[in-house]
Amino acid sequence: MNARYEEFIRRVKELSDIGQAQGLLSWDQETYMPPRGVALRARSLGTLAGLHHERLTDPALVDLVEELRGAGLSGDEEVNWRFVERDQRRALKVPRELVVELSQFQSLAHEAWVEARKRSDFSMFRPWLEKVLGLQLEVAHRVGFEGSPYNAFLDEYEPYARMETLAPLLEALRQRLVPLVGRLAAGRRPAAPFLEQEFPVDRQEVFGRRVLADLGFDLERGRLDVSVHPFCSGISPLDVRLTTRYSSKELTSALFGIIHEAGHGLYEQGLPPEGEGTPVGSSVSLGIHESQSRLWENMIGRSRPFWAHYLPLLRELFPDQLKGVEVDEFWSGINQVRPSLIRVDADEVTYNLHILMRFELEQGLVDGSVKVAELPELWDQRMEAYLGVRPPDAAQGVLQDTHWSIGLIGYFPTYSLGNLYAAQFFAQAQEELPGLMEQVEQGVFGGLRAWLNRRIHAQGRRLRAEELVSQVTGAPLGVDAFMAYLEDKYAAIYGPN
Amino acid sequence: MNARYEEFIRRVKELSDIGQAQGLLSWDQETYMPPRGVALRARSLGTLAGLHHERLTDPALVDLVEELRGAGLSGDEEVNWRFVERDQRRALKVPRELVVELSQFQSLAHEAWVEARKRSDFSMFRPWLEKVLGLQLEVAHRVGFEGSPYNAFLDEYEPYARMETLAPLLEALRQRLVPLVGRLAAGRRPAAPFLEQEFPVDRQEVFGRRVLADLGFDLERGRLDVSVHPFCSGISPLDVRLTTRYSSKELTSALFGIIHEAGHGLYEQGLPPEGEGTPVGSSVSLGIHESQSRLWENMIGRSRPFWAHYLPLLRELFPDQLKGVEVDEFWSGINQVRPSLIRVDADEVTYNLHILMRFELEQGLVDGSVKVAELPELWDQRMEAYLGVRPPDAAQGVLQDTHWSIGLIGYFPTYSLGNLYAAQFFAQAQEELPGLMEQVEQGVFGGLRAWLNRRIHAQGRRLRAEELVSQVTGAPLGVDAFMAYLEDKYAAIYGPN
Repeated sequence: MNARYEEFIRRVKELSDIGQAQGLLSWDQETYMPPRGVALRARSLGTLAGLHHERLTDPALVDLVEELRGAGLSGDEEVNWRFVERDQRRALKVPRELVVELSQFQSLAHEAWVEARKRSDFSMFRPWLEKVLGLQLEVAHRVGFEGSPYNAFLDEYEPYARMETLAPLLEALRQRLVPLVGRLAAGRRPAAPFLEQEFPVDRQEVFGRRVLADLGFDLERGRLDVSVHPFCSGISPLDVRLTTRYSSKELTSALFGIIHEAGHGLYEQGLPPEGEGTPVGSSVSLGIHESQSRLWENMIGRSRPFWAHYLPLLRELFPDQLKGVEVDEFWSGINQVRPSLIRVDADEVTYNLHILMRFELEQGLVDGSVKVAELPELWDQRMEAYLGVRPPDAAQGVLQDTHWSIGLIGYFPTYSLGNLYAAQFFAQAQEELPGLMEQVEQGVFGGLRAWLNRRIHAQGRRLRAEELVSQVTGAPLGVDAFMAYLEDKYAAIYGPN
Repeated sequence: MNARYEEFIRRVKELSDIGQAQGLLSWDQETYMPPRGVALRARSLGTLAGLHHERLTDPALVDLVEELRGAGLSGDEEVNWRFVERDQRRALKVPRELVVELSQFQSLAHEAWVEARKRSDFSMFRPWLEKVLGLQLEVAHRVGFEGSPYNAFLDEYEPYARMETLAPLLEALRQRLVPLVGRLAAGRRPAAPFLEQEFPVDRQEVFGRRVLADLGFDLERGRLDVSVHPFCSGISPLDVRLTTRYSSKELTSALFGIIHEAGHGLYEQGLPPEGEGTPVGSSVSLGIHESQSRLWENMIGRSRPFWAHYLPLLRELFPDQLKGVEVDEFWSGINQVRPSLIRVDADEVTYNLHILMRFELEQGLVDGSVKVAELPELWDQRMEAYLGVRPPDAAQGVLQDTHWSIGLIGYFPTYSLGNLYAAQFFAQAQEELPGLMEQVEQGVFGGLRAWLNRRIHAQGRRLRAEELVSQVTGAPLGVDAFMAYLEDKYAAIYGPN
């Protein structure tokens, strides 16, 4: 049986190799690919997706999975078997032609979205989105689902998550967030005129790279580049690529992009090497992944101790712009709560309302109660209802995110899950690591990084998300830790209310 | 039969898509890959090589090739069939495992070479080269050959070329080159003290990019990056990537790298779009490819008219360094003939002697009369015999080139073939394009580019190299055009002798 398991793993690693190639081609499309390369890149990615599907559903691998089913596997072997069986079962229900078509179409739809956003013209993007949605719905119905059809989408990104538990959780979040936003909006807004200046991007990059190194991201096993939309691509644990974007009008946008993506990157670099190329060596879910980026970006990067350490360095780089700006003013300045149009620029409090409206629209798209053509109007209505702001154009409204263009439906909720996981993990870390924020104030992050690595990263995919959160924090996922974190933080900034 | 041909082409394009992925992964390995990514990159490239081999030898494609054999194909269909049949016939003789092993091993051997060259230690590289050579010899013997075993290697890069014609040609070249080198070395050496200065690389890059644009390389369908060893990677006709390398101590090295690779890049961008992804849309051979890079680099980029146009611009960028330097001084300064250690930095006259000694050593490696362990000593001896210089260390000697590390044996002679083709094409272009060099003096290259495109690039692989040279120049390949070009040029620089 050992030889059969080894043959199984050999084939699984071959799938991982194809995945690494797909990962690099996709990364390149966002970073260095010449503009006109897109059509053939789409075809090449489609071919790789087809090959991946073909190898995953290869009768020899199907037979191996069947043979190993009753073999009494345990430990890592059982984990690897379980996830490959799961992926294979899904793949067997979807014809290769559909996989290739979807992959090719995603690349092209993404380019259409880039153009449409540039011109702020939803009508240019509408037919592409209709087609992508149609293809994704076809996949979902072929794969099948229990309960809500949205579960088929959700399960892609957050394995084992179900609407039946997710929806009440997000509803509880909404109920506690809305009054907090109201209270904060009524309170004094910390002034931050120093942010309204020019900050040359070359100096921003120096600062961002310094922070990236301090956080412990390994540039021997990774990179930092520039793209329109920041992302982290874990091509392999030895090749983890982050991107950010710079604007001379934004002092912290690129930096928080870097810290956020570094959180993802530390997870990827910290996955168990013994599981490389197999499910054991993979991340648990997008929600858990996002918890790592949010924790570093928000709980650390937007904390007062962090800036007590870094503001002097930042002031050296921007002496005129930050003259006389002290830590409290800076910290409260970068933590303004202000209902705004763009999700990725939103503060920690209003952010989740951006997610909730997308979550609702997606459910409508999936159950058919919302038509693609209605999206711009529904988007604007919900923005007004939830956040009290109305986008002046589609680029700042329904066209702002890339996700739907590449077929990522059911992905947004994992961002809010990430916030909830992050707060719960962070509360636990503070309990187990006395002096944690004092270390942050010294620019020392090794203790937290080692804790996250031991408790989360190095576990790979051995536990489900719900098992992991219970094992690490002793409790199932809830909204309390997140709300307590927000309430404490913003009471300190805005004063008690 | 039409439907069968279409299915054949569909499969051929799938192979091309895999090739595009391999191309990108290899390009990335030389440009942006994090240092520690190499091991998994090697595995990923190996897997892709295995998939490519598997699809090429897929029984369904074997059957298609058989069916189409007697189908009376003609024109482009016959060309595509002929080259796929040729590649398939080779591939069927080589087991997939050997293809994967070779691919993986090449990536690792390349990294070993990088390290060995850095430390100038041949002994570090020796076991890798022995293994690569052994694998390549195994491939050659499985594929089979007529006449010299070296033909099996040569045929990989210069289809249909044979030692029986190549060796006499290069011998004729050697016989005419050696006395020319002797005469020029005895003559006055144009002084070029202005080259021995610092030239900041950011300005070199401005100049190089300006020239690149002027030559007509399309940056919407291509890129220019930096790598240790300049190269051109034609990932697809819509995605052609050049690299160069900058040193502030070298004014023209990066520039000639750019012009050289742009010559390759114009060929790739000019291939017939209707043949994309098939043999018809591919280049003829490495020798023909090299003719394009050499023609632009040497016949154009190192010509007096070129510098009559560009020296004023270059002087604007380096006003202190080039103060008072006039065109004749500059032109003769960059065309010094001087026996030297490094092939890629060699002048046009001595360059081919670097190739000839590699050609001889490779023949020895292939027929077993030269052992890998003997290479450093034999290298140094031949350098002394041919060029009168002896490398002070292995980095400047036997370790200088990357080729052998990645298994490229039989590749070097295509560089000299490129020089011969280039001179013959260029003589013909001058005949057919009156005022060509006057246009160059105006910085106008469109006429030459269009001529090369029409006569060579847009032909794709429809003609064999020997057919193409005869069709374009009316004569088979010889050494006369090249020697006449050199003799004229250096008589103008060194005076008649």
